[in-house]
Amino acid sequence: MLGENVHLATGHWPLQLAYAFVPQEGQATLLVPDWDVTYAAVDWAGDIRPFPYVEFCDPPTPEVIAGIFVGLAKEHGISGGLIGFEGSSERIAPPLCAPLPAVVAGPTQELIKSAFSTDRLADVSPVLEKIRSVKTDADVERLRVANEIAMVGLDAFKRAVRAGATEVEVRAAVDTAIVRFGHGYKGVRAVNAYPTVIAGRASVYGWRFCRSSDRVINDGDAVILEMATVSDGYWTDHTRTVVAGKATPRQKELWQTLVLASEAAQKTALPGALGQDVDAASRETCSGRGFTQFPHHSGHGVGFRYNEPAPSLTPKSHDPIMAGQVITIEPGIYSQELGGFRLENDFVITADGAAVLANNDLSLDA
Amino acid sequence: MLGENVHLATGHWPLQLAYAFVPQEGQATLLVPDWDVTYAAVDWAGDIRPFPYVEFCDPPTPEVIAGIFVGLAKEHGISGGLIGFEGSSERIAPPLCAPLPAVVAGPTQELIKSAFSTDRLADVSPVLEKIRSVKTDADVERLRVANEIAMVGLDAFKRAVRAGATEVEVRAAVDTAIVRFGHGYKGVRAVNAYPTVIAGRASVYGWRFCRSSDRVINDGDAVILEMATVSDGYWTDHTRTVVAGKATPRQKELWQTLVLASEAAQKTALPGALGQDVDAASRETCSGRGFTQFPHHSGHGVGFRYNEPAPSLTPKSHDPIMAGQVITIEPGIYSQELGGFRLENDFVITADGAAVLANNDLSLDA
Repeated sequence: MLGENVHLATGHWPLQLAYAFVPQEGQATLLVPDWDVTYAAVDWAGDIRPFPYVEFCDPPTPEVIAGIFVGLAKEHGISGGLIGFEGSSERIAPPLCAPLPAVVAGPTQELIKSAFSTDRLADVSPVLEKIRSVKTDADVERLRVANEIAMVGLDAFKRAVRAGATEVEVRAAVDTAIVRFGHGYKGVRAVNAYPTVIAGRASVYGWRFCRSSDRVINDGDAVILEMATVSDGYWTDHTRTVVAGKATPRQKELWQTLVLASEAAQKTALPGALGQDVDAASRETCSGRGFTQFPHHSGHGVGFRYNEPAPSLTPKSHDPIMAGQVITIEPGIYSQELGGFRLENDFVITADGAAVLANNDLSLDA
Repeated sequence: MLGENVHLATGHWPLQLAYAFVPQEGQATLLVPDWDVTYAAVDWAGDIRPFPYVEFCDPPTPEVIAGIFVGLAKEHGISGGLIGFEGSSERIAPPLCAPLPAVVAGPTQELIKSAFSTDRLADVSPVLEKIRSVKTDADVERLRVANEIAMVGLDAFKRAVRAGATEVEVRAAVDTAIVRFGHGYKGVRAVNAYPTVIAGRASVYGWRFCRSSDRVINDGDAVILEMATVSDGYWTDHTRTVVAGKATPRQKELWQTLVLASEAAQKTALPGALGQDVDAASRETCSGRGFTQFPHHSGHGVGFRYNEPAPSLTPKSHDPIMAGQVITIEPGIYSQELGGFRLENDFVITADGAAVLANNDLSLDA
């Protein structure tokens, strides 16, 4: 099972390899490395079964895991029938151990078929995406904490941007601020940050995320920070733009347009609205002020992954906006003359509209 | 296709989503986002076909990609027959955009079946792992550069460790050093680092990687750095241990044992040896000096991923050691009294034994 869905099922964000067995009735069982049981027990009060990991052992780890599943099949009286697995999840969240994601392919399918004596596997990825798109109150509170941690990185970004610094220097300053602040903040145990910094000419194409360089920031450059953070399995997605030195009046108008577009989307994101309504509110605000919002989404779900598919905030989206969803709103305007600008925050949908989970100083000068 | 195998097939390390089509005869075709063609063309001189990405468009991205594959099927006269895909790859390397790995599940299988009018898919993951385990000379040179970048992080680690610092502060210093140094070094375009720092009591369990905390380092603590880096798709895997302040004579004996164990493994790792021979050389060196090497592997393949399965350096491994393989050697001794220590470098197998790709000052005091 993908780490993000182990988190969904049990509250435990895996280090790397973990499984959750969820019966039709009764409580889930969590499988984690034997030396990680104590850590996992803080997250999950239910059944935890250990398997050896990293240490080589006899029988080897895959056989032990298979044996645990055979045991679960017996205990729950499952032999044959339909078993769900993540058959169509092709975008995944990395686990805490980000350089070693564990994913679901043939071996896990064979493991399930063998343990539960069945050939019938059902793809439950779409169902899980749907369940995940509405967060519990507890999830929202942890996402608020994750957003507060992200703010420290956004503030560090503003401080680090100056003419003469490189994109990757600013990126490192943001990562440092989050990692140093986040661990231990309101009980958070593990934090990773994924900042991208793009400046000057590159900002004009600032929707091309995830690639910073040793480009030197010049006075007057627009500088975009695109950033994922994850705190104990709760993901945030933010963007800020600043101008190195002093923004021009026209750059300020552009930025103010994005602030207003975000607010318009926020007010429209009421339970019962559709994704396209929220998208339109943002776009119309931009066009009403003489700017063109770029044709990437105006936002999307977020929380158990950096990018969740529902609700999609795009012109043709009929995805329903529902209370408890957590979404990004991220209008962007990329101008050949002024530079590229994007503003992105995370919001929870309430009966009164979208409430921002955290925010910081949005002034444009850095 | 997984990013790591797009890299294998074409030399291009994808940002996030990319595909490589490899015909039985003739050249591969690389599919990348339309705005990434120029970047990819530096890596791959062959056929590149663009698809829209991030921008929403009509027809949508999946349909465009499917259309490209239908075109490739026609051009290559493929209708029916056996098509390979990564059917059993459950450990993956994240792409440059680490928070959004793209993996192979049902949709990609359906894409292949439909485009090539076939129901016959073959799992080529084991074949790819085998091909990948032996690197080309060009790969080794790029891995050497990646290792040189990693050294800058290992040096920064040594400088950052001091009583009073926290694990995550040291982790941030290492990440900063690598990211700032690596971009632009010998033509490298994109670098990510994944350092974990574990100190004091936690170092005794220092084989539990990937989780740093806000634990404060005390004078005399053993401090372990476990680290992956990736430079343009070439992965390194390193570990260093230092003692905050002055190591005791017994700690120095332990560390010297790891240095000697690594050297013994290095000399044994000749073409024609087996994984178990290399493992035994390391273990016997430790036991000959009164220490017990911990029962995790003595090393493994590395290069297209942080951990490649072949060759496995474990007591029962019959994996052949072959010229051109790149391996880690990573003996660890974890002592309740002295703390946990591990030393890990990356080596290329030559006719004369394993040659280290890079190294730094291995003195123990920090």
